[in-house]
Amino acid sequence: DHVVICGYGRNGAQAAKVLRAYGQEYVVIEQNESRLNELSQQKDIIFIEGDATEDSVLEKAGILRARGLISSLEEDADNIFVVITARQLNKNLVITARANEENTVKKLMAAGANTTVTPNVLGGGYMAHNLMKPGVTEFINHLSVGGLSETIVEEVSVSLLPKNVHALTIEDLAIQKKTGCNVIGMKSLNSKMIINPAVETVLHADSILFVLGNPEQIRRLKHEFEVE
Amino acid sequence: DHVVICGYGRNGAQAAKVLRAYGQEYVVIEQNESRLNELSQQKDIIFIEGDATEDSVLEKAGILRARGLISSLEEDADNIFVVITARQLNKNLVITARANEENTVKKLMAAGANTTVTPNVLGGGYMAHNLMKPGVTEFINHLSVGGLSETIVEEVSVSLLPKNVHALTIEDLAIQKKTGCNVIGMKSLNSKMIINPAVETVLHADSILFVLGNPEQIRRLKHEFEVE
Ligand SMILES: [Ca+2]
Ligand SMILES: [Ca+2]
Repeated sequence: DHVVICGYGRNGAQAAKVLRAYGQEYVVIEQNESRLNELSQQKDIIFIEGDATEDSVLEKAGILRARGLISSLEEDADNIFVVITARQLNKNLVITARANEENTVKKLMAAGANTTVTPNVLGGGYMAHNLMKPGVTEFINHLSVGGLSETIVEEVSVSLLPKNVHALTIEDLAIQKKTGCNVIGMKSLNSKMIINPAVETVLHADSILFVLGNPEQIRRLKHEFEVE
Repeated sequence: DHVVICGYGRNGAQAAKVLRAYGQEYVVIEQNESRLNELSQQKDIIFIEGDATEDSVLEKAGILRARGLISSLEEDADNIFVVITARQLNKNLVITARANEENTVKKLMAAGANTTVTPNVLGGGYMAHNLMKPGVTEFINHLSVGGLSETIVEEVSVSLLPKNVHALTIEDLAIQKKTGCNVIGMKSLNSKMIINPAVETVLHADSILFVLGNPEQIRRLKHEFEVE
């Protein structure tokens, strides 16, 4: 149930940091000498020296029993190769991969990635938002979804709530009154994400609610509605 | 009142796209031959051929009357140089700059940048979040703060609201009931950002509220509370 991180550059190192904050175990694959030195100085990181594009190295990293893979190598061609190899070895793996060029995205998806990230596109968007709406950008940066922040957005499947809440409205649940959590989004199967749904919105069994809360509020939510 | 973008790589091109979505005018500075060709094929982009680290080129791009600068060159040293030069030419400029290495961040801030972005750190964090909380990551990606999305987070200064609302609570304002907007954050001068403030939180004259809403709800908010 671990995650395999291929490449411990700035990208891979930050991914590792966030996984740590989630309490998620991981194994790093790296072949660069100076990064291997860096890794060996950190006691709590498991790493393997080798080329992540080779079957045997991925197998050594436990790809067959891993839950996820982060392919964050420098070269797009290498990431495509890793994704193809990893997908062949494990059909159930959740794979997210880095693309430097935007036309690599399609190739990574065809190779079997579930999601991709293009760092320079993310970065360029952030710079523009920073300039136009500094306060709002600062705010959204606080909505970290992992242990790196005290505030979290959590998803709650209506199907996990007690049976009698289906067909009720968001208002009927009185989530904010009972728990302090704020319902800020809702998605039902085969329909678009609704941001800020109206309180009279009716819940379906397949709906997912997105709620904003601090850890205490989220804890209360899970307790109050008997979800884990 | 325009923005100067230095460097039209993937970073700068995405920043340009987001500025366009905001309806913000901008001028691009670029010296790479193939990128200049790309720019000349897009009718609606104003660009200048030249080296953004030179005073005369920044002046030609109107740095003296610009509101902002995005320094998105490939080399960290070049971005530091651009920031120093631009800051000397215009004290009021809002400057956001790209850092490849994390230890460049301090240098850019010392050189006069207001904010910095490290694309590979952003990218690595996104990859980990994608893997751990795909639904929540998708949700947060919808909270685009510009014209690229139908949903927006907007900031509202309490100081701009009618005088009698100060010292009231968030509940007293009845923002959600009157406008559909959802108050998801609050920040007062010299205090920490409060995410998801309790409804009994008292408003100060220096408070800023962050509200989530679609364009129609935001319009109603501005009309109802007489802000522009
Ligand atoms: Ca890397
Ligand atoms: Ca660039």
